[in-house]
Amino acid sequence: MRAGTNAGANALEFRDGKLLILDQRALPHKLKWVRCETVRYVADAIRAMAVRGAPAIGIAAAYGMALSKSKTGSGIKNDAELLKAARPTAVDLAHAVDHVSGAKNMPLAAHEWDGMIREKCRKISENGAKLIGDGAKVHTHCNTGFLATGYYGSALGAIKEAWRQGKKIFVYVDETRPRFQGALTSWELLREGVPHGIITDSMAGSFMACGKISLSMAGADRIAANGDFANKIGTYPVAVLAKENKIPFYVLAPISTFDFGIKGGNEIKIEYRDEREVLGVLSVSGKRIYPKGARALNPSFDVTPEKYVSAYVTEFGIHKNIAEVKKFWKNTKG
Amino acid sequence: MRAGTNAGANALEFRDGKLLILDQRALPHKLKWVRCETVRYVADAIRAMAVRGAPAIGIAAAYGMALSKSKTGSGIKNDAELLKAARPTAVDLAHAVDHVSGAKNMPLAAHEWDGMIREKCRKISENGAKLIGDGAKVHTHCNTGFLATGYYGSALGAIKEAWRQGKKIFVYVDETRPRFQGALTSWELLREGVPHGIITDSMAGSFMACGKISLSMAGADRIAANGDFANKIGTYPVAVLAKENKIPFYVLAPISTFDFGIKGGNEIKIEYRDEREVLGVLSVSGKRIYPKGARALNPSFDVTPEKYVSAYVTEFGIHKNIAEVKKFWKNTKG
Repeated sequence: MRAGTNAGANALEFRDGKLLILDQRALPHKLKWVRCETVRYVADAIRAMAVRGAPAIGIAAAYGMALSKSKTGSGIKNDAELLKAARPTAVDLAHAVDHVSGAKNMPLAAHEWDGMIREKCRKISENGAKLIGDGAKVHTHCNTGFLATGYYGSALGAIKEAWRQGKKIFVYVDETRPRFQGALTSWELLREGVPHGIITDSMAGSFMACGKISLSMAGADRIAANGDFANKIGTYPVAVLAKENKIPFYVLAPISTFDFGIKGGNEIKIEYRDEREVLGVLSVSGKRIYPKGARALNPSFDVTPEKYVSAYVTEFGIHKNIAEVKKFWKNTKG
Repeated sequence: MRAGTNAGANALEFRDGKLLILDQRALPHKLKWVRCETVRYVADAIRAMAVRGAPAIGIAAAYGMALSKSKTGSGIKNDAELLKAARPTAVDLAHAVDHVSGAKNMPLAAHEWDGMIREKCRKISENGAKLIGDGAKVHTHCNTGFLATGYYGSALGAIKEAWRQGKKIFVYVDETRPRFQGALTSWELLREGVPHGIITDSMAGSFMACGKISLSMAGADRIAANGDFANKIGTYPVAVLAKENKIPFYVLAPISTFDFGIKGGNEIKIEYRDEREVLGVLSVSGKRIYPKGARALNPSFDVTPEKYVSAYVTEFGIHKNIAEVKKFWKNTKG
């Protein structure tokens, strides 16, 4: 895949009974691979965010199951639970683990999952690129490129695909506090020479109000039956501000991100992470920004109601509302 | 003032022909004073943000003029221009400079300005505290305490006054990227033991949507005749998200912040600052967060339209709309 169009790189490699994970905590400054030989290692790498992004976490977890040495049903179940508990919000993780843990040949099933996600992300990128006109100023939050999905990307995949098609675009990249996933997005865009500017999360609304942003694209970690979705903290304000300024806001995700088993966003369990992510800038230095004794809150995701979504983009196309998505979801299961 | 209620400290001191500025770049980790003996030193300290916050900048500039050695009208005019150019968005700066540069005894006029701002901020804090009920969860952006106003504070002054009145409150403190003025707010709140939690700017909307925030209070750097106002970048999204979630959003500022000479927010000149404030975390380390070659945009302010403001709070009271403010503004000039 390294030489292929719209991929350029992969964030995970499974070979010789080991999973290699491109360590996103070291990026953009260092290219470093984490080598995992056991289920527990993979779970730890997911929890510590060496790999992040719902589809990439799913692929890592699929290969994590492939590393299981368990011979019994209950042993395999324990391994599956260990992986599922590593990041509770991403639904792909649970789907991937279930796909592999039920299979006779788990490494083969993991490869299947990986290939399936790759193909889905290629289609999502192509479908999403149709929404980006020549000259568009595209805003995006977090990182949804190949780092987040294993290959291609979802929202960032579409943005890069539009660029490859020769469209002259400019990308506004949210820094995405507290963990600065904007640095990963910038790194992916620089690799392909896509013009972009980094902004703090608090600036997007102002650029929208000034007419400098044409559209905004984000990924999703879990989408409920009513269309509400969980994504990286800071997505909800982007969606509200886009609607307020009459700018389209698109959600790009594989159909496996839709969880029709939960009715609405209020049922999505939101993960809180360590307050030190907010109190310091872990990627730069362990030094605190805040005075001794100060405490922080750190919800890692927020929930955006369906009414702020202009369209959902999946591997099946561009869907104006959740009912349109459900048709394809049913078809794939049928 | 050090022992008085609602002040607790001052951020500026003028004595023996020198201006001492509490260096906000060293806070919250170090208490350090910048000593200014010339107009140019004061202008540099304002530009470098050793002092920040519209009223505090105004007081610093007033004393800056008091340090002028110029004997001629054109010399004094040059000194005034030097100070006014240091931060173009804050209107208090220009007002303060004009007040002092026209006076026969400039040090006396500077002391007058200082005393006037102090008294105004005391009243703003008392008026604003009326809007905060017992048990309120108050959200605030940037720093608007005594560090920003010289004494007392505006929005944060009201929050601290409510606490001193015995109201049990909790404060959600926006970190306020790129310069983390939330660290200053946290430092001021810790001094008085006010319970608070630091959040990234991208989290406020989500806490509002979850019903965890009762009201939001901000300061202003310049308010136009139609009520649109410029304030620290990130204020506009807060105001939009508050309205969307039916949460009151209040603007607290001395009447001198109102500039009836400009019609609307679109006439307010927005200052862009060095992109390195976004690309790194200057308060913690000079190290870049972003890959080599990445560029950033750094507007330091945004403009919030009047329709998102629940009320303006000045030294004269709580005003439901800009027309109510104008009555008092006219009276003070008459």
